[in-house]
Amino acid sequence: MDAANSGPPPKRTGRRPGSADTRSEILAAARAEFASLGYEKATVRGIARAAGVDSALVHHYFGSKDRVFMAAVQFPVDPELLLGQLTGDPADVGERVARLVVGLWEAPPVRDRMVALLRSVASNEELAALLRVFAQQMLVSRVSQVLPGRDAELRVELALSQVIGTAMARYVVGIEPLASVPPEELVRYLAPALQEHLAPRAR
Amino acid sequence: MDAANSGPPPKRTGRRPGSADTRSEILAAARAEFASLGYEKATVRGIARAAGVDSALVHHYFGSKDRVFMAAVQFPVDPELLLGQLTGDPADVGERVARLVVGLWEAPPVRDRMVALLRSVASNEELAALLRVFAQQMLVSRVSQVLPGRDAELRVELALSQVIGTAMARYVVGIEPLASVPPEELVRYLAPALQEHLAPRAR
Repeated sequence: MDAANSGPPPKRTGRRPGSADTRSEILAAARAEFASLGYEKATVRGIARAAGVDSALVHHYFGSKDRVFMAAVQFPVDPELLLGQLTGDPADVGERVARLVVGLWEAPPVRDRMVALLRSVASNEELAALLRVFAQQMLVSRVSQVLPGRDAELRVELALSQVIGTAMARYVVGIEPLASVPPEELVRYLAPALQEHLAPRAR
Repeated sequence: MDAANSGPPPKRTGRRPGSADTRSEILAAARAEFASLGYEKATVRGIARAAGVDSALVHHYFGSKDRVFMAAVQFPVDPELLLGQLTGDPADVGERVARLVVGLWEAPPVRDRMVALLRSVASNEELAALLRVFAQQMLVSRVSQVLPGRDAELRVELALSQVIGTAMARYVVGIEPLASVPPEELVRYLAPALQEHLAPRAR
């Protein structure tokens, strides 16, 4: 050891309760727990243990297990908003959902988070598992409360597939003319396909 | 240098004309050229120069610039097949396209290549640029020959967005029930939305 390194050791600046570090360590632990155990089996206690903190601290930061989950996924759209649009007049449910998602995308912070999520979910197995658990728990399993039909879950997933694919093509790949079409026009083009999924005409 | 390394230098096993190495170096150079210059400006000569080989060798391996491009992208579906389905009776174009893509996905080698492409395009800027150029050149710019309407390009891109999003949800994220729905049923659920994009009813 040379003279320059012989002074007192540097102050330990690691995790302290209340630091931004603690919060992000809890979130990392939560992501791992939810991805590997699923929503039902993951517990606040287990997350706390994995993060090396007390359960009370997890509750302090996030409140309920639900809230830890939302924060861990950083899903750009509140599922409540989406479920809210599924209720109401079936005659224009496609347009309501199109308007909601396009409106959210056009807000730069939401778009940025969504693009970040799209980029990482495709290459990150843990995140894909987390998103699967999230979509199942927060959205799909509650769909039957707001949409009629035995196949409501499948239909909602196909509508979301249209939405996610459009976001990929418009923002991640950036293919023209889709990348530049004005939001209002995009709503008009998306609505009929979403309508087909969410309130199919009798065939 | 120690004794163990003092023998004759190991045989150089690097690039030889005709080796698998040469082929993959040409493809890497082609990906970079097409992604940065676009299809029109990229040349076989430029690709050869970037790969450190003679243009004749590029022609020998791949034939035309078109063929180098297809090989560089490794797009899992021949665009000709897709364009072929867009022609013909508009009354069931949605079902034809749904049947084509679902049929291709259910062939494991195609599915594997598609999943690999989806995983990498989201996190790889060069690949996203390449795919943008590919979709524009091989598909979108030729759509007006087979589909009527000033907005045919946009409609095809929205139909592809549905297809790509469904592949993401079914194979990459793996959300249920979409991940397990039998192919024939999936065709039935996809067709009406694709129909809305590709042959919209008068509204």
